[in-house]
Amino acid sequence: MPELRKDPIIGRWVIISTDRAKRPSDFLRESVVIKGIGVCPFDHGNESKTPPELLQYGRNGSGPNTPGWQVRVVPNKFPALGIEGDLDREGIGLFDRMNGIGAHEVIVETPDHGATLATMTAQQIEAVLWAFRERMLDLKNDKRFRYILIFKNHGEAAGASLEHPHSQLIALPIVPKRVREEVDSARHYYIEKERCIFCDIIRQEIASGVRVIGQTELFVTLAPYAPRFPFEMWILPKRHASSFENDQAAVFAGLAAVLKDNLARLDAVLDRPAYNMMIHTSPIGEEINEHYHWHIEIIPKLTKVAGFEWGTGFYICPTPPEESARFMRDAQVVLTA
Amino acid sequence: MPELRKDPIIGRWVIISTDRAKRPSDFLRESVVIKGIGVCPFDHGNESKTPPELLQYGRNGSGPNTPGWQVRVVPNKFPALGIEGDLDREGIGLFDRMNGIGAHEVIVETPDHGATLATMTAQQIEAVLWAFRERMLDLKNDKRFRYILIFKNHGEAAGASLEHPHSQLIALPIVPKRVREEVDSARHYYIEKERCIFCDIIRQEIASGVRVIGQTELFVTLAPYAPRFPFEMWILPKRHASSFENDQAAVFAGLAAVLKDNLARLDAVLDRPAYNMMIHTSPIGEEINEHYHWHIEIIPKLTKVAGFEWGTGFYICPTPPEESARFMRDAQVVLTA
Repeated sequence: MPELRKDPIIGRWVIISTDRAKRPSDFLRESVVIKGIGVCPFDHGNESKTPPELLQYGRNGSGPNTPGWQVRVVPNKFPALGIEGDLDREGIGLFDRMNGIGAHEVIVETPDHGATLATMTAQQIEAVLWAFRERMLDLKNDKRFRYILIFKNHGEAAGASLEHPHSQLIALPIVPKRVREEVDSARHYYIEKERCIFCDIIRQEIASGVRVIGQTELFVTLAPYAPRFPFEMWILPKRHASSFENDQAAVFAGLAAVLKDNLARLDAVLDRPAYNMMIHTSPIGEEINEHYHWHIEIIPKLTKVAGFEWGTGFYICPTPPEESARFMRDAQVVLTA
Repeated sequence: MPELRKDPIIGRWVIISTDRAKRPSDFLRESVVIKGIGVCPFDHGNESKTPPELLQYGRNGSGPNTPGWQVRVVPNKFPALGIEGDLDREGIGLFDRMNGIGAHEVIVETPDHGATLATMTAQQIEAVLWAFRERMLDLKNDKRFRYILIFKNHGEAAGASLEHPHSQLIALPIVPKRVREEVDSARHYYIEKERCIFCDIIRQEIASGVRVIGQTELFVTLAPYAPRFPFEMWILPKRHASSFENDQAAVFAGLAAVLKDNLARLDAVLDRPAYNMMIHTSPIGEEINEHYHWHIEIIPKLTKVAGFEWGTGFYICPTPPEESARFMRDAQVVLTA
């Protein structure tokens, strides 16, 4: 008998197939393999092929936009939003519009074209997380922006157009609907119970254990109770913290190690799948609060979103999270660094 | 300069690329081509390969589950939800669940394996629409159900696992979040203005004309002002009607002709793309109202949904709807029947 489950935060119901649950080997998809064909604008020596850098870590001595960096942030050459201009908010009859003002940046995570977050050193990943934080704090000085999303498309199937390891940042002049819903739901829960709903979920999930993928002193990784996608996972700080970029310095080293471990397990269990990763943090101007709890969502690209999902906002997940958590826990991984 | 636009019904913002707008030929994807390999359970003569039929039109004389039908409805052999049992609603700490009770049916649209809704006769399409209606009205007698979605995945890229022309029906024991939001927003608008928001949009769009793909006496097809996807289109009855299955008999013949025309144009403009089609109708028990307006959404599968979309619920649409409407209007199509 399939099961209907409700996500306690967003209120979304999903269908979990329990009878003919899909195992990792049941998903047909291509592994993400680095081809290394052609000239890569994110390799050392090709710095002139990107817009001028906004931030770099690791270069000693030589000037900007030269090799030697370990992490490099540049504006996206083909930005979804433009950084220059005013919003010019406008109504046209029933419709509302504004100019597409925003920032769209690329965080090049390493000069090593063939690396991934699963194979990089934890130290290198930590540098990437500090770059995320530094760019977020800088962009918050721009009063036009209301929300900053950090995300990663890994592999062509997940929407990556360049294979060199990179993440993206988009700063938006409005708080997106999906974020607003999540934050508002968490606030309503807090008003009712005087507790953070994420803290409650963490407590309940650690006590039950069946959906825990792993935990450290600072973080827990869960297969969510009502996942949209098979092998979806959430990484949450155990201690309440409402925004990624304002969390304590100590968490970044811990998060780097957790990310590396979790992504290495994902690679082992699903043979290097394409995935999307998103950091969920509080909107600008409401960073410090008791109700929202920043976290990272990772969704491997294993299934197709089709008419049923688009028509309803309902999802059919063919692998129960208890199963995916078990596969992830049992994965044999040898961390390289 | 890109543009930010808000969908007036659901409140979702999208980014419309206006600078480097994508033309139909810019989208890389495979055309949907019928391969006809292997034994198809939806062909005449293979009726025993599906569960026993629930409805058929066109068969004369011979018994059930034999050839001769023109439209045939069967239970899905691999249903997402089970039809037997009780809901057994249950709370587990923070979490809510119920048994996955529902109906999942397949509407085989024609015995012709190689046909599509763009090439079938309008008369045959009308029979399919009547089958949708008849199954919906029948399933509404089951008091466990709250919503019925009719949808179609056309082509493998859009999630179809069988190429024989078919649509699907899923009856759900809850009203999906996406539907609830749309209906509730429309109700709020009605309470404020004493007008249906869809009727207002239709009036404004017909007056402006720039996003009109086509219209007949009864229907208008629009490229929505704030589309999630390039070449997204909505077919709406011009006269207010809150539910598909309760609309007047006369509209079904008109809708069949419109569907055929619109899908033939889509095939011409985008070279037979994969697409998803969904009927949006009122939830069960609130079918007759002044605020909601049933309609059909069609989204060709041209782009990938990636981290930005999953992280925000925001969409980036690379083709302005004014452009896609113009391409669709200008398409040269010769309707075959």
